[in-house]
Amino acid sequence: MSYAAITSSVIEELQAICGRDHVVFDDEKKLKKYSRDQVPEDKYARLPEVVVMPRSAREVAAIMKLANRETIPVTPRAAGSGLSGGAVPIYGGILLSIERMNAILEIDTANLMAVVEPGVVTNQLDAALKPYGLFFAGYPMSEEFCFIGGNVAENAGGGRAIKYGVTGRYIRGLEVVTPTGDIVQLGGKRVKDVTGYDLVSLMVGSEGTLGIFTKIVVKLLPRPNARVAVLSLFRDAEAAIAVVPEIVTAGKLIPAAIEFMDHFSFSMAARSLQETFPYDQIGAVLLFEVDGSDNGLVRAEAETIRRICEHRGAIEQHLADTEQSIERLWKIRKQIPWAIKRYTPHQSIEDIVVPMAAIAALLPKLDEIGRRFQTQIPVFGHAGDGNLHATPMKNPEHTLEHWDRMLPDLLTDMYRTTARLGGTISGEHGIGHKRRDFMGLVMEDAQLDMMRKIKLALDPQNILNPGKVVAI
Amino acid sequence: MSYAAITSSVIEELQAICGRDHVVFDDEKKLKKYSRDQVPEDKYARLPEVVVMPRSAREVAAIMKLANRETIPVTPRAAGSGLSGGAVPIYGGILLSIERMNAILEIDTANLMAVVEPGVVTNQLDAALKPYGLFFAGYPMSEEFCFIGGNVAENAGGGRAIKYGVTGRYIRGLEVVTPTGDIVQLGGKRVKDVTGYDLVSLMVGSEGTLGIFTKIVVKLLPRPNARVAVLSLFRDAEAAIAVVPEIVTAGKLIPAAIEFMDHFSFSMAARSLQETFPYDQIGAVLLFEVDGSDNGLVRAEAETIRRICEHRGAIEQHLADTEQSIERLWKIRKQIPWAIKRYTPHQSIEDIVVPMAAIAALLPKLDEIGRRFQTQIPVFGHAGDGNLHATPMKNPEHTLEHWDRMLPDLLTDMYRTTARLGGTISGEHGIGHKRRDFMGLVMEDAQLDMMRKIKLALDPQNILNPGKVVAI
Repeated sequence: MSYAAITSSVIEELQAICGRDHVVFDDEKKLKKYSRDQVPEDKYARLPEVVVMPRSAREVAAIMKLANRETIPVTPRAAGSGLSGGAVPIYGGILLSIERMNAILEIDTANLMAVVEPGVVTNQLDAALKPYGLFFAGYPMSEEFCFIGGNVAENAGGGRAIKYGVTGRYIRGLEVVTPTGDIVQLGGKRVKDVTGYDLVSLMVGSEGTLGIFTKIVVKLLPRPNARVAVLSLFRDAEAAIAVVPEIVTAGKLIPAAIEFMDHFSFSMAARSLQETFPYDQIGAVLLFEVDGSDNGLVRAEAETIRRICEHRGAIEQHLADTEQSIERLWKIRKQIPWAIKRYTPHQSIEDIVVPMAAIAALLPKLDEIGRRFQTQIPVFGHAGDGNLHATPMKNPEHTLEHWDRMLPDLLTDMYRTTARLGGTISGEHGIGHKRRDFMGLVMEDAQLDMMRKIKLALDPQNILNPGKVVAI
Repeated sequence: MSYAAITSSVIEELQAICGRDHVVFDDEKKLKKYSRDQVPEDKYARLPEVVVMPRSAREVAAIMKLANRETIPVTPRAAGSGLSGGAVPIYGGILLSIERMNAILEIDTANLMAVVEPGVVTNQLDAALKPYGLFFAGYPMSEEFCFIGGNVAENAGGGRAIKYGVTGRYIRGLEVVTPTGDIVQLGGKRVKDVTGYDLVSLMVGSEGTLGIFTKIVVKLLPRPNARVAVLSLFRDAEAAIAVVPEIVTAGKLIPAAIEFMDHFSFSMAARSLQETFPYDQIGAVLLFEVDGSDNGLVRAEAETIRRICEHRGAIEQHLADTEQSIERLWKIRKQIPWAIKRYTPHQSIEDIVVPMAAIAALLPKLDEIGRRFQTQIPVFGHAGDGNLHATPMKNPEHTLEHWDRMLPDLLTDMYRTTARLGGTISGEHGIGHKRRDFMGLVMEDAQLDMMRKIKLALDPQNILNPGKVVAI
């Protein structure tokens, strides 16, 4: 890949496009802010040469035309809350931050659609929708700070996918600036649309490599009136996991969430929040949420769950039916990645996903891998979707060199194990550059080749977020 | 486009691949069966040079490799129940029928997934799932004869999209033979997967132009125990349409279906079924279905609908809560296209879709277009999705030449009107070759160009279903 360097005349052009205040190039402290996402290890970070903060699709298009003319790589960035390095400018060049494009443009209650700019914080949209009795069912766990644009770029999942699906299900329209600087309107406020190829779905989850979103049309749902959460503590992981398919098949209900936390994840998170539990008896924990329009039905569903868990040997269960008490339970779950991060920066939060019923077979294999590599692998995540954040952590007794040398082998082992169970390497965090070179473990060349061809058909100079998803 | 003719040595190769019994080339009566789909007018039909009926992905791949070597166009075909000419071999060549690939390979109750071949009839899958208390929520109106493979190729919609979405939502994995003859496994039994570009969604709705499906992994849902249908008769269309957004917003419920039938459609269909209604008082009719796991809740929702319709002036309402009585109401709705077809073969069943709340503005405009072109345009379809099958019919007083000359102008007018209301030209029937040349009315060149680039990236010789979706 041979890209041009940023010259002072390029800087001047960028300033003319976005305004002087919205171009950063000589302030290393500011540039550093844009050098990484939430992947903790330094080796995945890289300083951009210049950061631009456009305010409109027209400005974004002008930047892309300039970048094409000069062969400069452009890396789009939303909140930087990603977990695969997708927003890291690994070839330097232009970092295009959409942070100033952050307006909620329209809440259309008649069509149950919202039109937003990509820099809107997910929770801000939720707060704006609440008075209308509506909600956006995409629910990444970082909703307090992630941007809708990033959610769409990564096709963010989260805790409610088993019932509500992931972000993509709710994206009906996109205004996109193409890699070559055209502005196109894909989809719209239609709930059905088969007019040509589904470019909206192709853009969703393309990790900023196929286009930059400048407007997003989001489908809304009536906000559920009733919510109940159930936290169920089990003596061992097998008993907990056996509950999951039983809820759906025997219980005949699809909860909004079924979260899994192993002993290590749960204890570390709950302890750091000063919660009291019989930690030494707990092998694994499930957190359920059920929601709906009818309070009686939702309570009955929660009771079905409680009963199934009891039957499967739950040693303690907590029901929560107020917003505050429900959030208290979720807080434990959301605390886990932070607790792990505080424990060590030398860790790799993974995002493997298997068919739901294969989790029972996956867990002991993860244990085995941990033992083989003599390292702790806490496991937590979305049991209802088969999506587990197994997180290998550096053994304090190992050197950093050992950890760096070992990790790729450990991940190869984990990914191969996952693939053998019908799974794959990312359920919601994406590939970015962190997992790019592992793609061949779960996909034939012919499939990777299709991705390469599509990328180069739309971005012939490979300048939009190069080096991500698939090696060109 | 310059394609090679089929030589006798090509026929021999095809026979070697599929077996002599599964290659048809010298029997015009048999070839004719494969010359059209459900578009009635002859001008959209074309005889294939040869029909092949492969039994496996390997055979399909061998056919594509041969076709690439010889530059022969290949048109894949499922049940031929399409409504846009998608399965018509407009350049002759090879018609590839997947009718023999019709096995239900697996019903995986632990993961709520089924694996099927593309030639399985939609209702056959439903019947196979019923004993397990499961269902496939894709619900095209032709489920008695359409094939799952065709549903996926067209991203079929149907009557239940407002609640359940369309076919694509349930397609988790595909085995695909690419235009160049590779066999790739896309997705799988995962409910979440962001490992690379979403090629599954790109394939869904690509109308057989980007790949041929040889295996389909379908997500299943627990079968709703309770169903109630409500048929509500109104004096005029405005009153009926005003109900639709009110159900969702004020009623706070998402029915499984909200179907609209105008006076002409409803009367023609119901009369042909010997049903008795006060036809001269009816301006428009809505058919609702609500379903769910709780009988009481479903009945309460049906009652909410009944009350809102009554408040909006419904002159007569019929509730149905047994499978038989519900099917009787749906039968009227499903009868409409057949009744229109019997009325005249010179008609054009359209598939326009607008944002749900724009239907009220669209209906009088369709009336206006009918008056301007002095022709009847019965309107029926999926009001809950904004997807209406407005069907211009030849005025018996006009000549066939007049109709042929007039129709493109009428359609241009209808599509422009739809686009101005935020709509587009196809919600579920697809583009095929019937609507291909109208794409420019609702899409900028840049977007069409993206589609062309993707098509040529994956099918450089443009041999897989050429001439469909977008002109190359």
